Amino acid sequence: MTQDPLQRTLKHIDQNQTQAIDRLKELIAIPSISTLPEHQKDCDSAAQWLKHQLEPLGFEVSIHPTHSHPIIKADYTASTGSYVVFYGHYDVQPVDPISQWHHPPFEGKIKDMDGKKVITGRGASDDKGQMMTFIEACRAFIHETGSLPCSVTCILEGDEENDPSAISTFLKTHKPQLENADCLLICDTQNWNEHTPAITTSLRGLVAYELTLSGPASDLHSGMYGGVIQNPLQVLCQLLGSIHDRHGHVLIPGFYDDIHVPETLRNQARQLPFSPDSLLEETGAQAIWGEPNHSIAETLWFLPTFEVNGIIGGHIGDGCKTIIPSVASAKITCRLAPGQQPMAITTHIEQFLKQHCPSGTKLTLKSTCEGMPGLAINPDHQLMYTIQNALNDEWQARPALIGFGGSIPATIAFHEILNIDCCMLIGFASRDDNIHAPNEHFGLSTFHRGTRSWARILWALGLPS
Amino acid sequence: MTQDPLQRTLKHIDQNQTQAIDRLKELIAIPSISTLPEHQKDCDSAAQWLKHQLEPLGFEVSIHPTHSHPIIKADYTASTGSYVVFYGHYDVQPVDPISQWHHPPFEGKIKDMDGKKVITGRGASDDKGQMMTFIEACRAFIHETGSLPCSVTCILEGDEENDPSAISTFLKTHKPQLENADCLLICDTQNWNEHTPAITTSLRGLVAYELTLSGPASDLHSGMYGGVIQNPLQVLCQLLGSIHDRHGHVLIPGFYDDIHVPETLRNQARQLPFSPDSLLEETGAQAIWGEPNHSIAETLWFLPTFEVNGIIGGHIGDGCKTIIPSVASAKITCRLAPGQQPMAITTHIEQFLKQHCPSGTKLTLKSTCEGMPGLAINPDHQLMYTIQNALNDEWQARPALIGFGGSIPATIAFHEILNIDCCMLIGFASRDDNIHAPNEHFGLSTFHRGTRSWARILWALGLPS
Repeated sequence: MTQDPLQRTLKHIDQNQTQAIDRLKELIAIPSISTLPEHQKDCDSAAQWLKHQLEPLGFEVSIHPTHSHPIIKADYTASTGSYVVFYGHYDVQPVDPISQWHHPPFEGKIKDMDGKKVITGRGASDDKGQMMTFIEACRAFIHETGSLPCSVTCILEGDEENDPSAISTFLKTHKPQLENADCLLICDTQNWNEHTPAITTSLRGLVAYELTLSGPASDLHSGMYGGVIQNPLQVLCQLLGSIHDRHGHVLIPGFYDDIHVPETLRNQARQLPFSPDSLLEETGAQAIWGEPNHSIAETLWFLPTFEVNGIIGGHIGDGCKTIIPSVASAKITCRLAPGQQPMAITTHIEQFLKQHCPSGTKLTLKSTCEGMPGLAINPDHQLMYTIQNALNDEWQARPALIGFGGSIPATIAFHEILNIDCCMLIGFASRDDNIHAPNEHFGLSTFHRGTRSWARILWALGLPS
Repeated sequence: MTQDPLQRTLKHIDQNQTQAIDRLKELIAIPSISTLPEHQKDCDSAAQWLKHQLEPLGFEVSIHPTHSHPIIKADYTASTGSYVVFYGHYDVQPVDPISQWHHPPFEGKIKDMDGKKVITGRGASDDKGQMMTFIEACRAFIHETGSLPCSVTCILEGDEENDPSAISTFLKTHKPQLENADCLLICDTQNWNEHTPAITTSLRGLVAYELTLSGPASDLHSGMYGGVIQNPLQVLCQLLGSIHDRHGHVLIPGFYDDIHVPETLRNQARQLPFSPDSLLEETGAQAIWGEPNHSIAETLWFLPTFEVNGIIGGHIGDGCKTIIPSVASAKITCRLAPGQQPMAITTHIEQFLKQHCPSGTKLTLKSTCEGMPGLAINPDHQLMYTIQNALNDEWQARPALIGFGGSIPATIAFHEILNIDCCMLIGFASRDDNIHAPNEHFGLSTFHRGTRSWARILWALGLPS
């Protein structure tokens, strides 16, 4: 009976949760904050800790130095099944403000929260807890059956929160091996809700700019010149105020060009209930915004945005200062819809701004990041059905095909460099896990079900297609 | 021959310039910076110094303490002529940045500048040098003729650069005496050019606000919420960007109500040549702005402005931060045209902003100063002609009737509290005197001609009307 090894593996997982949680605690205890130089050694320790987890299971583990933190590559060659590349990251965000944590962030304390048991700590959800669901699934298979049902390469990096170039360089170097993968599994996203898993099938891209407008050579007395010399801060407001209509539709010609969202994903987005009330509760905003002919999910996942993130200009100290400021600048980021490329968006924005900038003010638009395209994966790939069924078996709920309105640089790097058609973002975090915030945590039952989910997926990927 | 005493007085002035300059040097040497508490004693010393100048001339001098720096009242009662109140101030601006001064700011060094002799130092022009032109004219009259040709009260304050409420309180207290003045003379403004004196006949008023827009309860991740939650910084840009048309005309209904400029002043403003090229050179701006059907002078003097002086919102540090900021605010000041009142303008602005603010964003508009009305004096007052003729006699050039685009709180206080119809702003500063800046200076020939001008004016005001 072919199900036997899977059932034994699932049982093994169920019976060894305490040990699995203890191992996660050990990993949480290593403060591998990638953005702070004083934690360089902790990042090294986390990499070593993972090596010591994977080697005894039969993985061939190598630690690859980068210009920043090391990347672990762990290969397991099975005699049958597909070849799967798994991605996770061992680095975590800083813990500031530390005073807001109810428990020390590197202790992995178990506590009750809203009637559920959670493990607390920085990285408990993002991404140590999630990454360990996959490793624990591999461990259970190997302990119970002596091998994995398919070939696996784990790539575990230490710069997800820090520097996307480390993984890019690594992928370029190892492309000859990795591009042979049948499927890429990335575990760093959310489930749809407590009862429903999700496959994240689209990401928005990102471009970032600094827009500067220069007027007079220095700040001017507004009494002596007010009315005859144009104020660059006001020009900035006019330009940035002319970007959107009142519903948030961006008026830059070409801004909505090249959006490509497979119909399957669009239909799914229309069907997924996205509650305006819970959005208002989460954000404290007074009203929902957005174009009337798009659902909330469609807006968040499949439409580009133009966001002013900050403005610097003129007098910002106490009291009033009657000046016409000499210069004004704004920080801008745009989310790109699936299919959209940074360079094209930049061209459209630049043309629009230059066309609308009055002649007396000098405009410069500087790109401040490399830019990432928006991405939608192919929802009709054969392995998509295989994995959806495996998740359905575990959760007794059809996984939601969801989008993510943010950008995940590593995913873009995998997609662009390795060009693997089947790229699955399967994560088990919840919206309320407080990732990147004080009191990050991960539900223990989610940790358990996540591990069981990977066991089912690995088993399904090992079956003859 | 009635001209004799004036001619003798003018000759006395000519022959005693060296001593007059030495006295100005003494006054400049007292660092009476009113805004810095450590210079409180210097302000007291400057007041005492002035008392010691005026008492020997026969003025009855009293020093009036205020909540800030003392005000000097010096009364001289003549047997004939009008009753004139003269205003000047002995306090000066701070000297930062001190490193940019070519000579110590409190030495009153004489140097050549562009072929002209000037006295340098903080206050050389604003207002010690100008104030002393009047005192030296009084001194010359009294030395030469034994008395002044008309009755004079000098009010010399120490808070012009610091706190307008000191003079207001003083004027309210002394209103019973001061409101009897036939004419108010204020010496703290500019001539038209090197060869042409000026009477400043209008001032713009001022209102100041802080506009705040609140959206979500805290900064939001622009990937997770971008497109469905409105960005208050963008709303701020839309509101502030909708204030002006492309020529600078303010689109707020009622914004141009209640402007009252006497036709004489408007005609003068149309005739005065105001060079766009020199404005561009002074400011380093690329272009002149402003409504096409108004001359530069009309725009600067008789039109209100809406100026964004500063914006604070979102991320202003290095790098990019993909947020929807929670709150955004702007510092705004408006110059009011003659006739306009702060309260009416505030109502118009508030109505416009509230009407155009989208419902999802909370708007607050806070006044940050008391506000000052715009002011135009009556150019057809009989004493105006008297004084114009006196100035013409000295300069051999008709004085220009000019406006000032800024606000002079003390003038407004005199006008509103004493309600004197004839309020003359006659000053001798030049545009390039570097007032409020490093290397302030005052032309010695201007100091000389300014003193002679006051002698002629005092004489004219002493003649039977």
